[in-house]
Amino acid sequence: MRHNTQQADTIRAVEILQDAMYGLELAAIFFAGISGALAAVRKNFDIFSLLLLAWVTGLGGGLMRDVLIGAVPPVGITSWRYVLTALAAGVIVHFLHPRLAALRRLIIVFDAGALAMFVVIGTIKGMDYGVGPLAAVFVGLFTGIGGGLVRDLLVDEAPIVLRERELYAIPATIGAVLTAVTVHYDLFNPWVGAGIAVAILAMRLVSLKMNWQAPGPWQGFGRQRTGR
Amino acid sequence: MRHNTQQADTIRAVEILQDAMYGLELAAIFFAGISGALAAVRKNFDIFSLLLLAWVTGLGGGLMRDVLIGAVPPVGITSWRYVLTALAAGVIVHFLHPRLAALRRLIIVFDAGALAMFVVIGTIKGMDYGVGPLAAVFVGLFTGIGGGLVRDLLVDEAPIVLRERELYAIPATIGAVLTAVTVHYDLFNPWVGAGIAVAILAMRLVSLKMNWQAPGPWQGFGRQRTGR
Amino acid sequence: MRHNTQQADTIRAVEILQDAMYGLELAAIFFAGISGALAAVRKNFDIFSLLLLAWVTGLGGGLMRDVLIGAVPPVGITSWRYVLTALAAGVIVHFLHPRLAALRRLIIVFDAGALAMFVVIGTIKGMDYGVGPLAAVFVGLFTGIGGGLVRDLLVDEAPIVLRERELYAIPATIGAVLTAVTVHYDLFNPWVGAGIAVAILAMRLVSLKMNWQAPGPWQGFGRQRTGR
Repeated sequence: MRHNTQQADTIRAVEILQDAMYGLELAAIFFAGISGALAAVRKNFDIFSLLLLAWVTGLGGGLMRDVLIGAVPPVGITSWRYVLTALAAGVIVHFLHPRLAALRRLIIVFDAGALAMFVVIGTIKGMDYGVGPLAAVFVGLFTGIGGGLVRDLLVDEAPIVLRERELYAIPATIGAVLTAVTVHYDLFNPWVGAGIAVAILAMRLVSLKMNWQAPGPWQGFGRQRTGR
Repeated sequence: MRHNTQQADTIRAVEILQDAMYGLELAAIFFAGISGALAAVRKNFDIFSLLLLAWVTGLGGGLMRDVLIGAVPPVGITSWRYVLTALAAGVIVHFLHPRLAALRRLIIVFDAGALAMFVVIGTIKGMDYGVGPLAAVFVGLFTGIGGGLVRDLLVDEAPIVLRERELYAIPATIGAVLTAVTVHYDLFNPWVGAGIAVAILAMRLVSLKMNWQAPGPWQGFGRQRTGR
Repeated sequence: MRHNTQQADTIRAVEILQDAMYGLELAAIFFAGISGALAAVRKNFDIFSLLLLAWVTGLGGGLMRDVLIGAVPPVGITSWRYVLTALAAGVIVHFLHPRLAALRRLIIVFDAGALAMFVVIGTIKGMDYGVGPLAAVFVGLFTGIGGGLVRDLLVDEAPIVLRERELYAIPATIGAVLTAVTVHYDLFNPWVGAGIAVAILAMRLVSLKMNWQAPGPWQGFGRQRTGR
């Protein structure tokens, strides 16, 4: 009897965590959408282009993931909740962009949170589709950085993830590897996922705060990174 | 007896319409191909790059659609008629581009016609593949704007569909939604499709003629759209 | 008895050739990866962006091919050997790029070799997946030029394959057509493949040496190709 109650408690805990995860994924889509819409504002694009950029930034990474693992049609075009979440981010930016500019630092935090969530969720989905740990790491990475990459291509700029030296793809890769390994060895549970996501977020924020930069091309001893 | 004759007439009418639709799709590929090849001429690319841009602009939207709905290999690389139609547009532009420049206004009209056809046909194909109305609207949109989008990326420009403020994606979206809804409720037939395509074309042309522009980012009351 | 020995010899010859082909494919990935990493050095990107560009240039063409023929997840994200080969190219460029700059002419030769291998292997894989000769030619072409194309988009430049007039896509297309035709008529064997690859390589190198250029847009008689 006692045992059954424990089991029921466990099941309920898992359900709560899954709901929390779904909610966090929607939040990630929303914040990525914000960054896409802000890029459109910066370029003075019209409202429709702004919505398109919000959609592509919020859901483009997941779209790449789904195409690569064969999960077509991708959720980024089939799920009303996902699509409306990204578009809502666009509508909010359309009306509130002058105030959002003031929230720049907060947005960077949320953007890092979106990256963390996307990487963990993307890697799990890859493992669920049985593509193996290596491919799962790649699709996790694509889920995390793909949307911003396409956003930058569409506004005709070299992608931030490539251009900027702050640590971005490195925390994402570490997080994807940890997720793939824990899933592979059956050590993954929602708490582990949450821990990995928090670790990605922390690495990204600390690197921004401390202005850590990844090294550029090796210049030989004594002359490294003299200019940019 | 009378009844059978009527049935035969109906079947023949549907066949004629389907043939007409196929012909119109080839025309859409041709005119989109023209616009891709003209972009290559503007950049002074060589003949092979011109053919590649004609192909990608004529068939790239359908390629995205087919990848997203799982219809691989896409018709854009398997169908001789489609490929030769796009390449023919390239060859014609190669030899006649000075004269085509004089036909600029006519080309804009044909380009709008290509958009209209692509959106309706793309949305129908999405519904046929059972991806649901929301995803069908997306793939219809991609079919319509995807080719031009890749064309602009390849000539290293921000895509016209994002940059320009004239109504382009809005008529396309309205058309895709109307097509998906009528197919979903079994109200679609070739006449309805033709009507929707004509409506997209008309919205696009009227917006160009009247210089209607989609609004840019909201500037607060009294200051909207002051500059670009 | 004699007959059996001959058969065994034939089988062994085929195995050696297949191993050689696999080795050559890894070499192609490696040299394409070098060109991607060098583009990152030129832009002064950090080490992670360099590795990403090495990966995308070495394996991006095959990724497109696999998505288009439905071979998902693509080998470019599932195969350790392929991924590590591309990343190894990146690591080597990171440390040795000043010396590699001196090897510029050698790199152009290896790059042409990578193109040749990729086109033949890509076309064969398309035929193996039963997409038909036309689509196989397209996926062969994509395998050959796709990686460099994405590399150039990511460093925000018009793709070299479109911009430069030296023969690049033309030898690739001829090679893809020859491969598709010989496979289609059951005339293909590894020796034929090697011959086609050598022919692509030779066409590319001779065109570079002789400075052959594909013609730009037709200017009418007497005025062709006056400027660029």
